[in-house]
Amino acid sequence: MVFYKDEGLVYKPVEEIDLSPNSNETYLKSDVKAPRMAGIIIKIFTWILELRGFGTMVLYILKRDNLIHKLVSYAKLKEPPVYVPSYPWEDLKEKEVKSIQPDLSPLEQVQEAIGCLPEREILNAEPSFRRWTIQDYSRSYTSGETTPLMVAKRFLDAVHESSNPPLQMSFFINYNSEDILKQATESTHRYEQGKPISILDGVPIAIKDEIDCMPYPTTGGTTWLHKLRPCTNDACCVEHLRSCGAMLIGKSNMHELGAGTSGINPHYGAARNPYDINRISGGSSSGSATLVSAGLCPVALGVDGGGSVRMPAALCGVVGLKPGFGRVPHSGVLPLNWTVGMVGILAATVEDALIVYAAISGHSPSNPPTSLQPKVDFPLLKFTNSISNIKMAKYGEWFNDCKDEIKNCCYEALDLLCMNYGWKTVEMTIPEIETMRLAHYITIGSECNASLNSHPNKFNRTEIGWDARVALRVYGAFSSREYLNAQRIRNRQMHIYKNIFKFADVIVTPTTGVTAFPITETAIKYGEFDYINGAALVRYQIAGNFLGLPAVTVPVGYDKHGMPIGLQFIGRPWSEPTLIHISFAMQSLCISSYKKPQVFYDLLGKGEVRGTTSAEGMQAMLMKPSTSV
Amino acid sequence: MVFYKDEGLVYKPVEEIDLSPNSNETYLKSDVKAPRMAGIIIKIFTWILELRGFGTMVLYILKRDNLIHKLVSYAKLKEPPVYVPSYPWEDLKEKEVKSIQPDLSPLEQVQEAIGCLPEREILNAEPSFRRWTIQDYSRSYTSGETTPLMVAKRFLDAVHESSNPPLQMSFFINYNSEDILKQATESTHRYEQGKPISILDGVPIAIKDEIDCMPYPTTGGTTWLHKLRPCTNDACCVEHLRSCGAMLIGKSNMHELGAGTSGINPHYGAARNPYDINRISGGSSSGSATLVSAGLCPVALGVDGGGSVRMPAALCGVVGLKPGFGRVPHSGVLPLNWTVGMVGILAATVEDALIVYAAISGHSPSNPPTSLQPKVDFPLLKFTNSISNIKMAKYGEWFNDCKDEIKNCCYEALDLLCMNYGWKTVEMTIPEIETMRLAHYITIGSECNASLNSHPNKFNRTEIGWDARVALRVYGAFSSREYLNAQRIRNRQMHIYKNIFKFADVIVTPTTGVTAFPITETAIKYGEFDYINGAALVRYQIAGNFLGLPAVTVPVGYDKHGMPIGLQFIGRPWSEPTLIHISFAMQSLCISSYKKPQVFYDLLGKGEVRGTTSAEGMQAMLMKPSTSV
Repeated sequence: MVFYKDEGLVYKPVEEIDLSPNSNETYLKSDVKAPRMAGIIIKIFTWILELRGFGTMVLYILKRDNLIHKLVSYAKLKEPPVYVPSYPWEDLKEKEVKSIQPDLSPLEQVQEAIGCLPEREILNAEPSFRRWTIQDYSRSYTSGETTPLMVAKRFLDAVHESSNPPLQMSFFINYNSEDILKQATESTHRYEQGKPISILDGVPIAIKDEIDCMPYPTTGGTTWLHKLRPCTNDACCVEHLRSCGAMLIGKSNMHELGAGTSGINPHYGAARNPYDINRISGGSSSGSATLVSAGLCPVALGVDGGGSVRMPAALCGVVGLKPGFGRVPHSGVLPLNWTVGMVGILAATVEDALIVYAAISGHSPSNPPTSLQPKVDFPLLKFTNSISNIKMAKYGEWFNDCKDEIKNCCYEALDLLCMNYGWKTVEMTIPEIETMRLAHYITIGSECNASLNSHPNKFNRTEIGWDARVALRVYGAFSSREYLNAQRIRNRQMHIYKNIFKFADVIVTPTTGVTAFPITETAIKYGEFDYINGAALVRYQIAGNFLGLPAVTVPVGYDKHGMPIGLQFIGRPWSEPTLIHISFAMQSLCISSYKKPQVFYDLLGKGEVRGTTSAEGMQAMLMKPSTSV
Repeated sequence: MVFYKDEGLVYKPVEEIDLSPNSNETYLKSDVKAPRMAGIIIKIFTWILELRGFGTMVLYILKRDNLIHKLVSYAKLKEPPVYVPSYPWEDLKEKEVKSIQPDLSPLEQVQEAIGCLPEREILNAEPSFRRWTIQDYSRSYTSGETTPLMVAKRFLDAVHESSNPPLQMSFFINYNSEDILKQATESTHRYEQGKPISILDGVPIAIKDEIDCMPYPTTGGTTWLHKLRPCTNDACCVEHLRSCGAMLIGKSNMHELGAGTSGINPHYGAARNPYDINRISGGSSSGSATLVSAGLCPVALGVDGGGSVRMPAALCGVVGLKPGFGRVPHSGVLPLNWTVGMVGILAATVEDALIVYAAISGHSPSNPPTSLQPKVDFPLLKFTNSISNIKMAKYGEWFNDCKDEIKNCCYEALDLLCMNYGWKTVEMTIPEIETMRLAHYITIGSECNASLNSHPNKFNRTEIGWDARVALRVYGAFSSREYLNAQRIRNRQMHIYKNIFKFADVIVTPTTGVTAFPITETAIKYGEFDYINGAALVRYQIAGNFLGLPAVTVPVGYDKHGMPIGLQFIGRPWSEPTLIHISFAMQSLCISSYKKPQVFYDLLGKGEVRGTTSAEGMQAMLMKPSTSV
């Protein structure tokens, strides 16, 4: 083995890169080289990695074999680093309907957002299955059809039922019945007095356990982090929701430290996919995705550091919106990284994503701007009512690098969009995708390592699950040169995407390369060590994080096992309104074929399923665990 | 040896730090632990360091023994990183005399600056010795007393003479007689026609060989860097000077790669101190400092990444101004680092520093803003004519941590300021000075390593001098965690300094902890390995770089060997006008005791010294090499 052999790729100047479909830029299929492991092998592998001498050598080989050396560590490139993916505000000159200025309160912002919603009739054109929306809750409360307290009780019953066998859904890391009932009582009282705070009053919303929310500790999916970093206040985004009257229903499950994609947590259980409880939910915002999918709340918050909102949203058949870097204040979010993670929204429908996006955007007096997120005076929501001539960039080789069922389903959805709205796809070449995936990995890993190790009290690594332990060891293996080169690649990619957006309004991709796959015995016991499926899950999502771009996933269909498929739109900086508009269009075309999950609860008590698992879903599940409804 | 033993310091929250003089914050004397070496030992040490296994272990011990582990690598702190030391523009509400807007041309900016100059009579109150200023050149040219061509010829004679024994001054890495004479001829022609471009027309200005200036290669003090990175254009700052008609007289000598403080270059010779040619000039902008000191140009440009402008300026008895980060565009400067190095000005007088500061500030169409230096709309020069009630923060323990002669001299200068202007010193405690020095070292080292290693063609390390080789090896030894923790310390320090500036307008310190020390045989042969004197040289200068603050050094006296002593003022962000104002005041009080260096040339041919070394200086030098004039 030759240490430090200089094998770096020489990158050409960005302006010489041909972005046309005939470009000679090659699409490098992600070729993950990692041992496939089970049982005792996992323990031995972990122990070896943690050995200082030999472990370091193994890490060196892993970095080399996974092209980290060639594409990043020894890369030859000219760009200086860009450390934070923020952009100067740019008016995209969309037709304006509502422009929310940053000096509005969350309440006022929500009010403005409601004015942006399309007609209900358009939204719900012949839905075959539909989850209740924020408006449904608000109307039921206002009409007296039901009350927040009744919803809270149905909710607690459902969580109780689903936590136990046969479901064992592990939606939550923490929820406090007393606190929930107290909030519900207060909200009910407000409705009785005819004075709800906002449309969100009494609406159940779950918070990923990576975001501070009183009165809960913030575990980050661990058994120890909350002891080192006590939660003393609501995060800024939670504070906004609370000020709108939302009923905060607890801290949703997540992949331990966000350091994985399966949503299987060794301490708090696997957040199982409501469409098939024997399959993964995706992660790391696994609990949030499953809660929304199973009807236990119309919206939940997640954090997206490497697809962690969009990916579980797609796998669980819900909408996932990750606003651009800087739109939603990060204060009160666990600093598992500083420059790639962003608060995101998981919602049953696009309209609910819009409302909550409006609620949580912008700073507040108690959570002022920071050095990483300085105050920018831009409209939080400049919503476009009708956009014609949308151009969607598509890179065929990348788009097609997924399971056939996903590819076909996504092409059908795209065709629908183009046929119904006259929009166009633009075939392009998007270069250096694998380079960016690795640069992002070095960045998130280095930042997580630096952040976690700066607590005055040490954590004991035996308290950490096996997969997260391996991740942490790899995270600690990067040099300052690798980190800096990753930031230089960030600069380069920001330029490349700027050039792409000269030709198109958005980039369209499948959200994931695979659909929800079965949970194995090994994964339950040791965590998910399937790095190949893991890479396929995040294949399309890195630009949203590393380049700070807004991105959204909309459910567009199901595979042969009934597992949901999402289509992703990546927008240019500040283009959230465009993305939301496109999402409305996509949803309206697909909603008629939406399917109900196996595990689903009707908290408003309107349908045939009242406060319990749907009869046919339960039946199917118990008889044949991994097939569709 | 226990690897990775967690021995990190727990930092208290910034708001709990007591900045008062009675604070219990301890002043940690810089206790550099590095082997003292000479001859063959240096070679062996270098070879060992470059061994992959054992060298890594030695580096580990060096990092541990020098407190890098305790203060940075394993530090326990809460701050997120701040990667770039830029500040939002803040109006300091000084009394405005001239406010230069960023849309002016360099020419117009220079014109505005001239309007800010104090009366000549005030400036030159009884000077015992005075170097010619830009105004002197301009007047001599306009009056026809002399011409740029005559100056160019005197200059070339002087450089020729001084390059050879006995002086061997090694001022330049490159200068081109033909190019200089061509510029001089053109300038002379303009004066003959009565149409000089600006006050800078025909004024000789030297450029540190770290800044692109046609027609020269940019070597960075090496024998190979210009082959990997050809110079094809003027740097932005050089372009500005050229557009004002300045006569660019060549590329001044520098410490190899800026990676040292002595100014001894193994390839291009030692830039010897004009006050004693057997002593160092300081570095890394050694050539620029010595040229100005020796009268060969009124101004020279340098780059200050860790005191590299201010320190040689102080050691050579001239003014050194380092504007705040972002004031002077960095494009066309060798990217030896990205976040700590800034273009600075070495000048014989404060007035010349002001004029050239005005000329080189701001972007130009051919050198637009970059991601690291975005466009900020602030006045480039908002000059204050009279500032009363200046408060100067002084941290006694730090201030006094220098040679007695420096301490006494600086206290006398301070007393003069306070007596003459009624200004006050405010005794304060400035915490974590050694922490910042180490965090800065990690930052500049990591960035230098990443940048140098990204050229498509490799350089051969045997082409590098021994001291730079050792530096490069240490630079490559930092982890991403160390780099990130250094940036978190940057955030912390930015907050601490913000708090300090609530109590004072500037911070005052000696510029260096030692004066120019003798050049040893070993240093000539292997480079300077005296890390203890090296640390004393940069002791007071790091905040200017790491926190991007403007800072200036003004000559205030001499030690018993006749070696110059500088007093440094560090300003808050955007306070260059205040610093320049204070510098004028300091200079006017000290100028009557300024001494002529041993090596000095009178390019205007006005004095008793015409185009040659001053008689008494030469005499003294030849008889007794290391004593004063």
